[in-house]
Amino acid sequence: MKIVFLGTSGSMPTKNRNVNAIALKFEGFRALFDCSEGTQRQLMKANFKLMQLNAIFISHFHPDHFLGLPGLFATMSLNERKMPLQIFGPKGIEQIVSDARKMVKKTLDIGFEIKVKEIKKGKIFEEKNFFIEAFELNHTVKCFGFCFKEKDKTATFERKKAEKLGIPVGPLYAKLQSGKKVKVKGKTFTPEQVMNYSKGRKGRKVCIALDTAPGNYLKNLKNCDVLIHEATFLETEKQKAKEAKHSTVLQAAAIAKKVKPKKLFLTHISPRYKNDKNIEKEALKKFKKAVIAKDLMKIKIEKNPPGKIK
Amino acid sequence: MKIVFLGTSGSMPTKNRNVNAIALKFEGFRALFDCSEGTQRQLMKANFKLMQLNAIFISHFHPDHFLGLPGLFATMSLNERKMPLQIFGPKGIEQIVSDARKMVKKTLDIGFEIKVKEIKKGKIFEEKNFFIEAFELNHTVKCFGFCFKEKDKTATFERKKAEKLGIPVGPLYAKLQSGKKVKVKGKTFTPEQVMNYSKGRKGRKVCIALDTAPGNYLKNLKNCDVLIHEATFLETEKQKAKEAKHSTVLQAAAIAKKVKPKKLFLTHISPRYKNDKNIEKEALKKFKKAVIAKDLMKIKIEKNPPGKIK
Repeated sequence: MKIVFLGTSGSMPTKNRNVNAIALKFEGFRALFDCSEGTQRQLMKANFKLMQLNAIFISHFHPDHFLGLPGLFATMSLNERKMPLQIFGPKGIEQIVSDARKMVKKTLDIGFEIKVKEIKKGKIFEEKNFFIEAFELNHTVKCFGFCFKEKDKTATFERKKAEKLGIPVGPLYAKLQSGKKVKVKGKTFTPEQVMNYSKGRKGRKVCIALDTAPGNYLKNLKNCDVLIHEATFLETEKQKAKEAKHSTVLQAAAIAKKVKPKKLFLTHISPRYKNDKNIEKEALKKFKKAVIAKDLMKIKIEKNPPGKIK
Repeated sequence: MKIVFLGTSGSMPTKNRNVNAIALKFEGFRALFDCSEGTQRQLMKANFKLMQLNAIFISHFHPDHFLGLPGLFATMSLNERKMPLQIFGPKGIEQIVSDARKMVKKTLDIGFEIKVKEIKKGKIFEEKNFFIEAFELNHTVKCFGFCFKEKDKTATFERKKAEKLGIPVGPLYAKLQSGKKVKVKGKTFTPEQVMNYSKGRKGRKVCIALDTAPGNYLKNLKNCDVLIHEATFLETEKQKAKEAKHSTVLQAAAIAKKVKPKKLFLTHISPRYKNDKNIEKEALKKFKKAVIAKDLMKIKIEKNPPGKIK
């Protein structure tokens, strides 16, 4: 599982940071979270196969989060894409995609299908081995965060062992599989006696929260391996952050301190900051595993170790 | 006078080349010729003052020539631009700008005036010291090339000298100024006797021709200091160039050989070419002063030397 930061600047690009987009690859599935102006070129620079993108998830409709759509449609068309492209976003996404198509279609046929889906909070996408959930953020316009969740791999039930122990076939097997003890003729059997937990593995979870001020979405961020949170301003600009409904670095790090991700990446940095030194310093005050994202930074998220899922 | 290549790739970006836009600065006037996706960031990288852009000239409506407009509008608005922005383009430009505005205006007010003007061939813009002419190119859709022409500085007429020579005040003065000899009481006077040619200077001329196959526009390119011409394909792809109404490198260089610019820059290079070696080789076969443009390449065009304008 791989994540690439394609743009890490808030509101407008800078020399060093493009505007926001995050690419995710899991098994054969490739997705974009937001698609700012210049995203197609950033995908090329990251060697992330643009033609094999399956889905794009747009958080909200501020210009720094979706203006890369028309150019992406144009390049996909010129390269004769045939595979449908799915695009998800808040109410209004159909109009956004229609406007983006219109800009391109004046002089170029779009030769592939674009499937647009308006999202609400909850599960918005599911495949065999993972699903994606949307949750509401706290921004000046309707805005969604996203959790990518690999499904847990459950431990295997060793039927032969259970039979050997004299546990009768039937509902007791399901009880043991769900992690509960059972009693047979006064004798207690534990799940550990019949389950092979070495075959089980907790699925990885990645949460992306931008743009947002701190709000009631912390429950959605629990138990995640990687939290990507916006951190537009330093604490010195706290008032500006409040007005524009963005987070300060300290606020984002404090959220991480509460929800305890294995790793925190801060992005959507205001163009006013010319280097990361103060941002990093402020983040590390609250959360030791904080990293300030940079353009084209790649994260590899390794499988969780096998074992009993708590 | 300064020109910066902001994008030099044809149809779609590559890792090394962004799509097309050319910035020009002359005295206090700043213009863009085309405005592809990512142009605002290229302007930043080139240290070309985006907020002080006066005008944008769009050649045609293929996606690689105008998709940078919405992002530019957004950034100008966020930076509280008040100065009006002028945008020129072929029939349909009003709709293009309106569509671009619409994408941004969903969530952001555009706080400055955008003046849109549909162009036809001929003089489309004039200021005290220069003018810009549009001319029709030979492409699959209506497409204009542009000439930026600094006005010639005429030599000064030294009135006192003329009086001293006994030339009577009146129409003979104008005749001398226009470069003709005059006769006064059987005596011939030449312009050189009364004109100070060291105060005269030929204005610089820059011509931009993309996208186009060779066509009937060569008269517009005459006497230019700098010719910027598209050269999408190598001669080996001549058939492709013909079908898509683009030029090969050899064709573009042959045009330069005919119109004799002081310098030729080739741009709008197909993404299929991974390096410039063969392109350069093909160009130099026909025209010795050919240069293959690269992103962020800057050209400084010095004033022509003073003297009599031929």
